[in-house]
Amino acid sequence: MRLTLLKIGGQVLETPAQRKQLLDDFARLPGQRLLIHGGGRAATDLAARLGVEAPLIEGRRITSREMLDIAVMVYGGLMNRQLVAALQARGCDALGLTGADLDVIRAHRRPAGAIDYGFVGDVDSVKADALRDLLDRSIVPVLAPLTHDGQGQLLNTNADTIASIAAVALAPLYEVHLVYTFERPGVLLDPADDSSLLRRLDPTAYARHRTSGAISGGMIPKLDNAFAALRAGVARVYICQAEAIGRLYSSDFSGTEILL
Amino acid sequence: MRLTLLKIGGQVLETPAQRKQLLDDFARLPGQRLLIHGGGRAATDLAARLGVEAPLIEGRRITSREMLDIAVMVYGGLMNRQLVAALQARGCDALGLTGADLDVIRAHRRPAGAIDYGFVGDVDSVKADALRDLLDRSIVPVLAPLTHDGQGQLLNTNADTIASIAAVALAPLYEVHLVYTFERPGVLLDPADDSSLLRRLDPTAYARHRTSGAISGGMIPKLDNAFAALRAGVARVYICQAEAIGRLYSSDFSGTEILL
Repeated sequence: MRLTLLKIGGQVLETPAQRKQLLDDFARLPGQRLLIHGGGRAATDLAARLGVEAPLIEGRRITSREMLDIAVMVYGGLMNRQLVAALQARGCDALGLTGADLDVIRAHRRPAGAIDYGFVGDVDSVKADALRDLLDRSIVPVLAPLTHDGQGQLLNTNADTIASIAAVALAPLYEVHLVYTFERPGVLLDPADDSSLLRRLDPTAYARHRTSGAISGGMIPKLDNAFAALRAGVARVYICQAEAIGRLYSSDFSGTEILL
Repeated sequence: MRLTLLKIGGQVLETPAQRKQLLDDFARLPGQRLLIHGGGRAATDLAARLGVEAPLIEGRRITSREMLDIAVMVYGGLMNRQLVAALQARGCDALGLTGADLDVIRAHRRPAGAIDYGFVGDVDSVKADALRDLLDRSIVPVLAPLTHDGQGQLLNTNADTIASIAAVALAPLYEVHLVYTFERPGVLLDPADDSSLLRRLDPTAYARHRTSGAISGGMIPKLDNAFAALRAGVARVYICQAEAIGRLYSSDFSGTEILL
């Protein structure tokens, strides 16, 4: 049984037309489905309105207690609940979850080293059986980028990480297709040229493009995650634009498939 | 099979010691359990911090679009998710729900008459089967006071109303005990004297105390709801303080039982 696990970024949700199209396309995907959403700018915007500082150290946001509350309100509240209502309107029996709900994703607070990231959770376990119980009743889980420590503490966890860890946990139970949406059409050899899209990327080509510098920056952890997921049993991994989701399982799909 | 449906007000959650005790007591209740929480002052406080006006007309809050977003963030986000994490820490397999999740509570926006209440939902239906599927797997649903219209719109709905409607919907499936927590020890004949607590209240006594004026104000809709729930098949209805939940099924329970 195929399970499409789609990770969308927060920014897709901020443009009404794009958001509507994405939800229409997701609702029409065949097989079982799970949606994971990131945060985007909404939490930072709310923090600014509230005068809460969101410190960045080496480009990474530190999750203070106040920032965690804002993340829980925005990601776990507004964004997650609105997505669920929008999917229900499209005939998807959606259910919004944080890692605390049904204890689906347990994490521990990242130990403070040179940097104390605050209330950030590194995932310990995914309760695949609880997700399967939902999926097998045609329920569409909608996961917010929040986990819990089992002691009552919610934690902020990166949505890309949740996507790959959930995909790996579900890989023994389903033919998991893990799809990351991205602001660009996929992996590009030249960031300035959409026609340089790589339709396929395997480890040999990846190593070559890394050495040449064509693939760099934020793409590297994303691709490392993608290859790790494939090695751990995930059937297929794609990186594409949100606009490509409607053609995901058709011959004119446009995006990058990551292959071993 | 007994199902305890506990409605708690937002204000109980605002006092850490009271909140902790309540959650400890709730987690220890025998049988199946469902928690419904109100909002309390948190949404009004956030609105004030954001400079959003929360207009009151004839003592009732009007839910503007901005106030709805705040309610979704605070009730559907922070409050609901924190309760779930806190219950998981106490061994309850909690799952936070709005009416949109699993389509459990569908409502329509209250038609604008003399007053337009804004994004307020009057309940049309409760999907009792979806709740039973959860309860029968020992999952503890935690309901936020939010519903949806099936067209993608979330709506604000009074938590007392959700409690009684859910209790009635579940009454054919369980022996439902509906418990409203209240800031006072129960129904008092003299609001200034806790020792005037009525341990039992039936329709005859209720009519008498209404006529005498001993029972008045906000207690009347609460009690009307309680009697209506009993007439619709709910097994027992109690009104008590949060502190009494630990003794709910013991002989030294203190509160008011509503009886037909």
